[in-house]
Amino acid sequence: MFYHNKKLQYFTPPDNPDPIYAKKVQELIGGTFGEMTVMMQYLFQGFNCRGPAKYRDMLLDIGTEEIGHIEMLATMIAHLLDKAPINMQEDGAKDTIVGAVMGGNGARDSIMDVMAAAMNPQHAIVSGLGAMPADSVGFPWNGRFIVASGNLIADFRSNLHAESQGRLQAVRLYEMSTDPGVKDTLSFMIARDTMHQNQWLAAIEELKADGLEDTPVPSSFPDLPDKKQHAYQFLNLSEGTESAEGRWAKGQSIDGKGEFEYVEQPKPLGSEPNPPTPDPRLHGTAMTPQVPAAQTLTS
Amino acid sequence: MFYHNKKLQYFTPPDNPDPIYAKKVQELIGGTFGEMTVMMQYLFQGFNCRGPAKYRDMLLDIGTEEIGHIEMLATMIAHLLDKAPINMQEDGAKDTIVGAVMGGNGARDSIMDVMAAAMNPQHAIVSGLGAMPADSVGFPWNGRFIVASGNLIADFRSNLHAESQGRLQAVRLYEMSTDPGVKDTLSFMIARDTMHQNQWLAAIEELKADGLEDTPVPSSFPDLPDKKQHAYQFLNLSEGTESAEGRWAKGQSIDGKGEFEYVEQPKPLGSEPNPPTPDPRLHGTAMTPQVPAAQTLTS
Amino acid sequence: MFYHNKKLQYFTPPDNPDPIYAKKVQELIGGTFGEMTVMMQYLFQGFNCRGPAKYRDMLLDIGTEEIGHIEMLATMIAHLLDKAPINMQEDGAKDTIVGAVMGGNGARDSIMDVMAAAMNPQHAIVSGLGAMPADSVGFPWNGRFIVASGNLIADFRSNLHAESQGRLQAVRLYEMSTDPGVKDTLSFMIARDTMHQNQWLAAIEELKADGLEDTPVPSSFPDLPDKKQHAYQFLNLSEGTESAEGRWAKGQSIDGKGEFEYVEQPKPLGSEPNPPTPDPRLHGTAMTPQVPAAQTLTS
Amino acid sequence: MFYHNKKLQYFTPPDNPDPIYAKKVQELIGGTFGEMTVMMQYLFQGFNCRGPAKYRDMLLDIGTEEIGHIEMLATMIAHLLDKAPINMQEDGAKDTIVGAVMGGNGARDSIMDVMAAAMNPQHAIVSGLGAMPADSVGFPWNGRFIVASGNLIADFRSNLHAESQGRLQAVRLYEMSTDPGVKDTLSFMIARDTMHQNQWLAAIEELKADGLEDTPVPSSFPDLPDKKQHAYQFLNLSEGTESAEGRWAKGQSIDGKGEFEYVEQPKPLGSEPNPPTPDPRLHGTAMTPQVPAAQTLTS
Amino acid sequence: MFYHNKKLQYFTPPDNPDPIYAKKVQELIGGTFGEMTVMMQYLFQGFNCRGPAKYRDMLLDIGTEEIGHIEMLATMIAHLLDKAPINMQEDGAKDTIVGAVMGGNGARDSIMDVMAAAMNPQHAIVSGLGAMPADSVGFPWNGRFIVASGNLIADFRSNLHAESQGRLQAVRLYEMSTDPGVKDTLSFMIARDTMHQNQWLAAIEELKADGLEDTPVPSSFPDLPDKKQHAYQFLNLSEGTESAEGRWAKGQSIDGKGEFEYVEQPKPLGSEPNPPTPDPRLHGTAMTPQVPAAQTLTS
Amino acid sequence: MFYHNKKLQYFTPPDNPDPIYAKKVQELIGGTFGEMTVMMQYLFQGFNCRGPAKYRDMLLDIGTEEIGHIEMLATMIAHLLDKAPINMQEDGAKDTIVGAVMGGNGARDSIMDVMAAAMNPQHAIVSGLGAMPADSVGFPWNGRFIVASGNLIADFRSNLHAESQGRLQAVRLYEMSTDPGVKDTLSFMIARDTMHQNQWLAAIEELKADGLEDTPVPSSFPDLPDKKQHAYQFLNLSEGTESAEGRWAKGQSIDGKGEFEYVEQPKPLGSEPNPPTPDPRLHGTAMTPQVPAAQTLTS
Repeated sequence: MFYHNKKLQYFTPPDNPDPIYAKKVQELIGGTFGEMTVMMQYLFQGFNCRGPAKYRDMLLDIGTEEIGHIEMLATMIAHLLDKAPINMQEDGAKDTIVGAVMGGNGARDSIMDVMAAAMNPQHAIVSGLGAMPADSVGFPWNGRFIVASGNLIADFRSNLHAESQGRLQAVRLYEMSTDPGVKDTLSFMIARDTMHQNQWLAAIEELKADGLEDTPVPSSFPDLPDKKQHAYQFLNLSEGTESAEGRWAKGQSIDGKGEFEYVEQPKPLGSEPNPPTPDPRLHGTAMTPQVPAAQTLTS
Repeated sequence: MFYHNKKLQYFTPPDNPDPIYAKKVQELIGGTFGEMTVMMQYLFQGFNCRGPAKYRDMLLDIGTEEIGHIEMLATMIAHLLDKAPINMQEDGAKDTIVGAVMGGNGARDSIMDVMAAAMNPQHAIVSGLGAMPADSVGFPWNGRFIVASGNLIADFRSNLHAESQGRLQAVRLYEMSTDPGVKDTLSFMIARDTMHQNQWLAAIEELKADGLEDTPVPSSFPDLPDKKQHAYQFLNLSEGTESAEGRWAKGQSIDGKGEFEYVEQPKPLGSEPNPPTPDPRLHGTAMTPQVPAAQTLTS
Repeated sequence: MFYHNKKLQYFTPPDNPDPIYAKKVQELIGGTFGEMTVMMQYLFQGFNCRGPAKYRDMLLDIGTEEIGHIEMLATMIAHLLDKAPINMQEDGAKDTIVGAVMGGNGARDSIMDVMAAAMNPQHAIVSGLGAMPADSVGFPWNGRFIVASGNLIADFRSNLHAESQGRLQAVRLYEMSTDPGVKDTLSFMIARDTMHQNQWLAAIEELKADGLEDTPVPSSFPDLPDKKQHAYQFLNLSEGTESAEGRWAKGQSIDGKGEFEYVEQPKPLGSEPNPPTPDPRLHGTAMTPQVPAAQTLTS
Repeated sequence: MFYHNKKLQYFTPPDNPDPIYAKKVQELIGGTFGEMTVMMQYLFQGFNCRGPAKYRDMLLDIGTEEIGHIEMLATMIAHLLDKAPINMQEDGAKDTIVGAVMGGNGARDSIMDVMAAAMNPQHAIVSGLGAMPADSVGFPWNGRFIVASGNLIADFRSNLHAESQGRLQAVRLYEMSTDPGVKDTLSFMIARDTMHQNQWLAAIEELKADGLEDTPVPSSFPDLPDKKQHAYQFLNLSEGTESAEGRWAKGQSIDGKGEFEYVEQPKPLGSEPNPPTPDPRLHGTAMTPQVPAAQTLTS
Repeated sequence: MFYHNKKLQYFTPPDNPDPIYAKKVQELIGGTFGEMTVMMQYLFQGFNCRGPAKYRDMLLDIGTEEIGHIEMLATMIAHLLDKAPINMQEDGAKDTIVGAVMGGNGARDSIMDVMAAAMNPQHAIVSGLGAMPADSVGFPWNGRFIVASGNLIADFRSNLHAESQGRLQAVRLYEMSTDPGVKDTLSFMIARDTMHQNQWLAAIEELKADGLEDTPVPSSFPDLPDKKQHAYQFLNLSEGTESAEGRWAKGQSIDGKGEFEYVEQPKPLGSEPNPPTPDPRLHGTAMTPQVPAAQTLTS
Repeated sequence: MFYHNKKLQYFTPPDNPDPIYAKKVQELIGGTFGEMTVMMQYLFQGFNCRGPAKYRDMLLDIGTEEIGHIEMLATMIAHLLDKAPINMQEDGAKDTIVGAVMGGNGARDSIMDVMAAAMNPQHAIVSGLGAMPADSVGFPWNGRFIVASGNLIADFRSNLHAESQGRLQAVRLYEMSTDPGVKDTLSFMIARDTMHQNQWLAAIEELKADGLEDTPVPSSFPDLPDKKQHAYQFLNLSEGTESAEGRWAKGQSIDGKGEFEYVEQPKPLGSEPNPPTPDPRLHGTAMTPQVPAAQTLTS
């Protein structure tokens, strides 16, 4: 069960409105690695967790924090959308050079209109200058963005990757802004992402220390003896052998259970496929013409 | 540019058809962590790679391998769909107990019909007993499933997580089958997933050894001095302190740049949100009634 | 900012596992009118609210409650998925009648397998017997399911409709179960939906009492004088006049601003469309053949 | 069965082309509350209606009208896309200030190019200057946008909300235009939305007058006696008690069956969740390490 | 503008309910090639048509017919869903064999329950035994299913393909049924699909006869002289030369403008890709480590 | 199994970066008719093919070629995104006219910023200046874009239509560019599309010559005798008879099996729909009020 405190976890309002930047910040709310993803991912992992209590509690701690991150970003977007240009030609300032280019069509009269043109139109039409559960191109967040498999090391690796992509995107947005308020709020969130990357790396160590999970995931299923030869071979399927230079091509495997082998000219081990002949009542194309009489029998 | 060899990388045909299992195998082709995902993810990462040649080559090696994995699974599904029950009541074998349950409605006469009921109907209607680019509930694969950010450590963590979820799902399907052919082919793919988990762990090590990337991602953007206090705090936002017991709550942080701190009763640092008043022409609800005269001015 | 209490708002565990029912309960989590929808809808409306404080506070109260409803249903699903049949043929109990129907193919041996066939396969393969952010056919929840327009009466009508569809679906699921634990938990949630329908009806009254909003939405934009005749006409476009019998076809309009009129034989008021000729460089089909020389000029 | 008359229900052509506005008008065709939604929603409700004939006839009347609304807007968009800038730099008019900004890259030479940049690129590439079944950010209309539950009061509340959001969006687009032709056509459609809001309010009254449906929906399912206490309580889950000031917190409930109660400090009524231990063959993480031997038994 | 006649274009009611078959018929309503697709495709092509009037009129004729096809199928589904099993265990008929298999869990008692398990759960929970705008796995119809490009030959080829897939799917469903009513209605629709395939083949001939369009599409854009060599070469990129045996590998090309050539060992004509170095502020991985100081300069 | 050659099939780098054009080129990668579609469509058709070997081999030849086309376009996009404007106001060049228009808000200072505003924001935030598996509005490619039915003539018609739309879109993009490098690469791809249109037309001829497939598809299912009258009638459902002028309205049908007939005033052949009364436990609205006592019986 959840409770809400009206104060924001952290927030410095933007110094200036900027509807284009508002469009971009949507990526951090409803993008593949936005706050909706980490919030839902951690909560579902927590709700479904059957492992030791410390993991479940930790997942719900961080999932609960992320709900508040959506709140922070939604507030930022409301500020950025303030005074967004709604009605074209409204500002009176006519750009005559632009007017000349446009000729008699008269459709556009000012750069302000261009701003109106490039902002997310749904920020005006649909949400009335509020944040939306969508990314920076307006694509809605969806449930396939999250992962909750019941295997904690698989999921913590997913969390680590989400926080890595998430911090990367937040940093990019930080670099794309010159607004001190925006940059201050984002730098707080970036610091939290630093914590969360560390947290998932620590949680992976903890799972190993507890003897619960290890590489390869799931470690409770070792490779079969007759397949082990395939478990440490690097296949050079792209012409050229630059890939032989990496750590993945030689030496002991990272899981400590094998030795990397570089296969320079890999060959197929199977035969040509030979899918069975289809049922004639499905009217697929077979090797020879089909007798067109099926329906006369049954109707 | 790509070339194709008609032989499969590895394949043992299923001993028996099984349309229900065919439905489930779709998860490994078109699911969030199916072969379409890893194939497209590695190819796009390779196409977009600007790092050293060994990384680009390695990405294209493995991406090219994964195209062939789709081919293997599509062939498996064609075999599993052989003799799928198309026309109900067709087998002549009437189950009288079932008939009694169904009463006079006569809609169903045999367990064979039940099989027809629970298979993916699109395997008959749409694909004519062939594999589809969709998951085990028929949801189509889509481009938001893949990650190619241009930052290699972020992407390799994503690849590690994809191979972890992918091996976990392949193992689950292995456990859900008793067919020797299916199990043999899957165990080969599971071994390759073992390699690929090791490969991405090795590639992450290689990036660090090359001095290119590290934690936190992106390591080229350190946390700001005034935000560093937030970069190593664990916030206990869920009642109870079981989460204090984990590695993430104490000791040096994994990136070696800070010390974990457990905040038992975290408080908001921001104030209450105060979003600006909306433009009246968007007809949102404001603090006081709006004058309903806008359109009479402009029309 | 949000906090979490580990106890559930209300919960009686199911008496028996039932993986098919678990599939159906997903509709109440991730369906169009599931708890994810109302949670996100109320939170976004609250985050974006610029109206009087009582509305914003009320929206965040109920949005916060709904997060906990996801938690309750996720827990119910974990119980329902307990002992779900994973490996076919595993229970040893062979149904010889079924075996006879299946003949030599040997793919299926027991009704338990049929259960395995009809459950949501992702509950085993993807989530490891946990709830997912998807509906009863496995389609993921997405952000287009929610509404937050900034106009409170429009949004409260949306909330009323969501709670109406939501209670209807919960009641249907109640009727579809015979499990006392399931029915007890659902009847609590149905009671909350009763409250929430009443709440939104009361909130619409409150908006009117405050003079903020009224019919037609948005009331701050009255119809133009020359269009008012179209604002109260019912057009009989489907042959037959049964529709003349309803309240919508006669008497004062509900907004009190007009009189309903039944137009028995409505005619077009516009002319035939005449879209302009397309730019030849887009190579659409025009009235006469185009000169195929465009590219020779520019390359 | 349907028939078509080539004349439009109402139409005044735009005075000027405007590809940016064309992009925005897409919201009214293929957005969540566009004409495709109301058309499909009313037709499916009509097709599925089992209630008295007047309701079915009325639903098909209005559903049929809405098909023609798509036609009107598609024609408007074709006019707005006339002379859309296809080929950059084509108009000869060079803006030297802009050129200076762009430096030697030479990619852009005029504001006309900017227009080309901000229009929906699919209007040129995909539809050849025609309307598309998508919204203002290019996201396609989909079937989850509509509601047809078989319960008429639930559906009429849905219709009322759709017409409320729809009129709000049409009004916003009206305010965002200065083109007399566009405004005239939109004001006709806004007037029809006024009618349709009144129509659904009237239809809800009619259902009550007929004794068919009432609050709470579905009224054929009253709350259970032991849950009634939860059916009228407002839970104050967000810190602060501003929400106590509204109609929803005190007095008789709107359905006349209870008394609103304000619960200032709501507590959980359930216990901590305790999901059952997962089947080890799904390789989720359990309380203690699993024995990694499963597959050796079955293969 | 559209009108509706209450009678169906053609209809024979099903003899028996069958909720599983109802699930499958959804493919013909909301699948990729269902009636929603052809209806919307032809209407949008008609609305956007700038070619001669006969084409526009023809498109609107057939588009209008297809709306009525949705109506026919929706009615068929309502009949098929009659008496669908809602409440498990309700029919009293206990299957003791099944009961034995299920042991003490008690979740399932009859084959009737299995029927309830395999039907589309949304047919009960969401639509209340009515048709939905979705396909046979419950995936919603969406606007990306249709094509309306403005080029009539491209679109008529699309229409021909849609009617080909559509007739194929309707035939498969015909073969999958033994219900005389269902088969009679489907055979009418199949006959209409025959007409529509003929119609689009005739329309393609008409476009050629009118001199408006031809192969290659768009014929108003001939291949450039220096690229013509690539316009008639078949590239043998898959090992083996079986593909040399087909009409596509030798003789005059179908458009009469070239000669097919079989290239047995095709080689790349381009060089290795060399994408430019990324902007360091995007923190992608470059050839050498980046200086981590960007943000200290701007904040 | 697949192999990769590092050289591109064909490529001329763009002369100049252009982030807006990069956004548009995405349509050719991840749009409905982009290279991802034809690649996946041909590969799945090939994997699933049960017809003669020449067809299977041919499908895999062309499918393999299309993988390389994605590679070419991804490389083009990386070049076009070079030097994309990341940080607003960064170039120092202030456009004072624009500044005056923007007034004191200070959000935008240069046309360069406008470029930043209109580019696909995910090209910076998500992909770090690389191609994405999405179309020109950022909507992701998905598996419902492809067709692989098992019936080769149905699929080859689909392929013909895909290559027609694909060449049309590539030509439009060619016309929308003035960059010699872009135009050279595109004209190569357009020439390949010419080949591929010819190829599918030839393949359809081959199927007929082999006696495998013909019109109507599937030709193995002729129309029933009592439905044949409906198989060649054109129904004039849109007012006006311009549609009588086309080839589809008179003369022998294209399949040679009938005579086109123009029905000027088509009438319904069916009766009014009469869907059965719903189960009261689903709480849909019926003709008369329902007794609200269901749940008291079962709980």
